[in-house]
Amino acid sequence: MKTRAAVAWEANKPLTIETIDLEGPKAGEVLVEIMATGVCHTDAYTLSGLDSEGKFPAILGHEGAGIVREVGAGVTSVRPGDHVIPLYTPECRQCKTCLSQRSNLCTAIRSTQGQGLMPDSTSRFRCDSETVFHYMGTSTFSNFTVLPEIAVAKVREDAPFDKICYIGCGVTTGVGAVIHTAKVWPGANVVVFGLGGIGLNVIQAARMVGADKIIGVDLNPSKVAMAKKFGMTHFVNPDEVGRDKVVQAIVDLTGGGADFSFECIGNVHTMRQALECCHRGWGESIVIGVAPSGAEISTRPFQLVTGRVWKGSAFGGARGRTDVPKIVDWYMDGKINIDDLITHTMPLDEINTAFDLMHEGKSIRSVVVF
Amino acid sequence: MKTRAAVAWEANKPLTIETIDLEGPKAGEVLVEIMATGVCHTDAYTLSGLDSEGKFPAILGHEGAGIVREVGAGVTSVRPGDHVIPLYTPECRQCKTCLSQRSNLCTAIRSTQGQGLMPDSTSRFRCDSETVFHYMGTSTFSNFTVLPEIAVAKVREDAPFDKICYIGCGVTTGVGAVIHTAKVWPGANVVVFGLGGIGLNVIQAARMVGADKIIGVDLNPSKVAMAKKFGMTHFVNPDEVGRDKVVQAIVDLTGGGADFSFECIGNVHTMRQALECCHRGWGESIVIGVAPSGAEISTRPFQLVTGRVWKGSAFGGARGRTDVPKIVDWYMDGKINIDDLITHTMPLDEINTAFDLMHEGKSIRSVVVF
Repeated sequence: MKTRAAVAWEANKPLTIETIDLEGPKAGEVLVEIMATGVCHTDAYTLSGLDSEGKFPAILGHEGAGIVREVGAGVTSVRPGDHVIPLYTPECRQCKTCLSQRSNLCTAIRSTQGQGLMPDSTSRFRCDSETVFHYMGTSTFSNFTVLPEIAVAKVREDAPFDKICYIGCGVTTGVGAVIHTAKVWPGANVVVFGLGGIGLNVIQAARMVGADKIIGVDLNPSKVAMAKKFGMTHFVNPDEVGRDKVVQAIVDLTGGGADFSFECIGNVHTMRQALECCHRGWGESIVIGVAPSGAEISTRPFQLVTGRVWKGSAFGGARGRTDVPKIVDWYMDGKINIDDLITHTMPLDEINTAFDLMHEGKSIRSVVVF
Repeated sequence: MKTRAAVAWEANKPLTIETIDLEGPKAGEVLVEIMATGVCHTDAYTLSGLDSEGKFPAILGHEGAGIVREVGAGVTSVRPGDHVIPLYTPECRQCKTCLSQRSNLCTAIRSTQGQGLMPDSTSRFRCDSETVFHYMGTSTFSNFTVLPEIAVAKVREDAPFDKICYIGCGVTTGVGAVIHTAKVWPGANVVVFGLGGIGLNVIQAARMVGADKIIGVDLNPSKVAMAKKFGMTHFVNPDEVGRDKVVQAIVDLTGGGADFSFECIGNVHTMRQALECCHRGWGESIVIGVAPSGAEISTRPFQLVTGRVWKGSAFGGARGRTDVPKIVDWYMDGKINIDDLITHTMPLDEINTAFDLMHEGKSIRSVVVF
């Protein structure tokens, strides 16, 4: 079949809208009509050429929502008409990692996904007879895309695609880090480094689970109003307290240190601050942000020996097929605010504008609707 | 009263045996007759002058066992005749940390202890009218010593002092890290960097809780026999596999990485290896060793984002008054082997020999008996 898609032909070039030949779903795969997709920093990172796994040409996009239109042989968990969110972190429920029940990082299709291919090591996309690679196993910048059955989460049908697509990455990454990775407890003091889309989702999840102080750290005071709306109780501007005094400011504010901190920037220096502002004895710091290639975090081991814990979180520690539908419910129940985070909506033809808005810091999240 | 004690007059000088004036216990304090004391690397570290908190002259020693001989006003939890193990990590059960139930790092007397003083900011020790400082709140190189009530663990009376003194530091540090900090589960694969006294205690605790593979890493193959006796199932010599291939060797041995690793050396390079040899998704690395002052650990944050956890452990995460008596029971029940770890026993007059044996690598643990 034919589908319209935004193609990344090479690094640092705008996407172009193309008519693509899409091969239908093979055994264990499903064809999904993408109704809406967010444009995320990770798409921009790959497009920048810095992603060592990035392959071109490719159809980017990993934060979508849509409707199953066709299923391949042997597919049992979804059927045509089902509403789904594609999962760049699948959940096979059968690999060593899924069965460990200790991690969401399913390995069932990791190697082919990393190569931009489907599990049978081929691509379903062609453009003028040239192979176009999949991206993160999802390629949601295509109006129609093919995914393994284990890489779609079935969700309720009354949820709006142009909002719940954000649950496919940013919302779950932030909310899940609080709930699944950190397991923030009621009354905990929480610090969030970076008040972008991920940070705001951390903040609202911390509020949802009953955190006490929710302290935001950001260089940009224009982010305060939105962060307060999502639950931030205190704001620390490193340029006001002194960039080398951020840790002390947080220790003072919390009466000893944070119970949990979340780094949502991707800067190894703030990752260190996030660890060291944690409470002696039990404070846990969770790295969410993606650091530049080759960058390293460091600290004195005394920080760990005296009880701080350094962790990370990918896709919020969420098992996609199990946990993503619950977050959709929370959104529909009004527990999670997504509407205010989606600052721009546009048709596929204007997808490059979404990247521009991101780079200019004018959007929290842009959503493309097909 | 008068007591005999080994005094450290200045850094890098042998201890000298002195007759000390010991003031009796004040309110909330107890007088303990030390019957036996281990000599630990931490004593040697402070004696070397590298410990920034080290004060001289001082009576070192923090790994003792003895008998309560007198109690000060208001002491209710022990009485004369009770057998006790002094605790350099006290357990007040009332400070923020104790009440958090999330850490053993009681802060009740931390500031004065760090200054070499009792909680009332004075010393009980004098030698020829010169003040001699306490050390780690314990000073077990003195035949009689004074401790706060919250810094003694009451233990059973049939346990031999010259063995259970080791539970005052080394045994609990290793065993506790497995049980309290890591909570190693049955069937887990465990890696231990450094097959000294702490490493051997980690190994025997891992065996006790039902670990599957217990892999030791050490440059010295002469340590293999003892480690196997304690439960080591596999040995990795970095000089045999290649010092830069230790992580891969462990990943291969464990089919993906360790569920838990323990660094018992105090080297920031092996701390990194210990983290990076952990299993993607859930492997936890616990820093036990004390690194040189100012040394820093580092890694790529990707290691954390893909599910590894970096922790530390002090005094094995054990709450001294609560958990130390249980380890004494385990020793008496034959679950924990201490006898083979105590390679040398000597009278107080020969305490400098204990340091010599340690520096020459000839002892696992030397114990001084009074």
